Amino acid sequence: MGRTSDAKRKILDAACSLIEGRGYSALGVAEICQAAGVPKGSFYYFFESKEALALAVVDEHWAAQRREWTQALTGEEEPLQRLRRLFEETEAGQRAVQEGCGTVAGCLFGNLTLELSNRTEVVRGRLQEIFEAQVGMVESVIVEARERGEVGVTDTREAARAVVAQLEGQVMFAKLYNNTGRLSPLWQNCRALLGATAAQGGAS
Amino acid sequence: MGRTSDAKRKILDAACSLIEGRGYSALGVAEICQAAGVPKGSFYYFFESKEALALAVVDEHWAAQRREWTQALTGEEEPLQRLRRLFEETEAGQRAVQEGCGTVAGCLFGNLTLELSNRTEVVRGRLQEIFEAQVGMVESVIVEARERGEVGVTDTREAARAVVAQLEGQVMFAKLYNNTGRLSPLWQNCRALLGATAAQGGAS
Repeated sequence: MGRTSDAKRKILDAACSLIEGRGYSALGVAEICQAAGVPKGSFYYFFESKEALALAVVDEHWAAQRREWTQALTGEEEPLQRLRRLFEETEAGQRAVQEGCGTVAGCLFGNLTLELSNRTEVVRGRLQEIFEAQVGMVESVIVEARERGEVGVTDTREAARAVVAQLEGQVMFAKLYNNTGRLSPLWQNCRALLGATAAQGGAS
Repeated sequence: MGRTSDAKRKILDAACSLIEGRGYSALGVAEICQAAGVPKGSFYYFFESKEALALAVVDEHWAAQRREWTQALTGEEEPLQRLRRLFEETEAGQRAVQEGCGTVAGCLFGNLTLELSNRTEVVRGRLQEIFEAQVGMVESVIVEARERGEVGVTDTREAARAVVAQLEGQVMFAKLYNNTGRLSPLWQNCRALLGATAAQGGAS
């Protein structure tokens, strides 16, 4: 049992790292198994297809990221400070990956959205759920900030979508330029999108 | 000569459409030639590699899009109205593709950025040039608007980056949800990012 779980764990870890680095389509099952150090036959014992593996990778990545987002976005700090923390931690996370492998990996969900959403409806559906959840988490913070009179937006859902879109767009640029410094304007841009009223950090 | 040019044209058209639909890695040269209706041997007469074809597709797509962006962003209208026109035309363009092939294709440059920038430095470099050019075109309009006192931003380059990032992020969502309506908040979001002062269309 221990060895079986180990093999599945190794496949998932190798797949996550390879998909982050090179995308989904460029990978073959044989290559994933080789990187994982498991025989190719064992792949289909755990996953019925490469698509099933992609879904498992997405689910696992989201479970970890949701914990991080929840930790950043809830707590005692003022709501906008928590949002700021989310951006700082995103930048730190991208920097850590870059230090490890030499390149900014970007957002796994954004990468797969552009690569796969028109090719597999089941992956599209899963990614939609994840982005809806992200938007919902950001919206909760915006609603809190609005109740405190700290932001001027009226449509909090649309504002949350704009914030997550800005995050995805800037992460795309961080990947393109292999430069996590591209993420540092996120906080000011978010403040602008929300019509933030207080002068925290100085509005431009 | 006529037939030779035809074959190259057919390969480029087929490749552009296939790359927009399915990405770069999922395609093989044989499939591109089959879609183009040209013998596989002729591919390497025109392109020394699949990467060279990708660059040619990117260059051609940008030549066309640069003309559209130039037309939208220059002219007699007030600067912010021109920026608004760019977003409306982007939405119309994505809708036209969706009506033709059933799915929102997204931005070819954004798609290839996330799929390829960590895998080929030459494609990364070309995509960087294109996004720098886009940011420059948007910045010119912001500078004009700023001279007229219509926007509050001080760092016009960073503001232009935020606008293009917002565009890429929302186009990603339009693709994910296969819904071009996702692009309609672009104008309001852009106004917020720029700290637009006049009440055109109503600031939220």
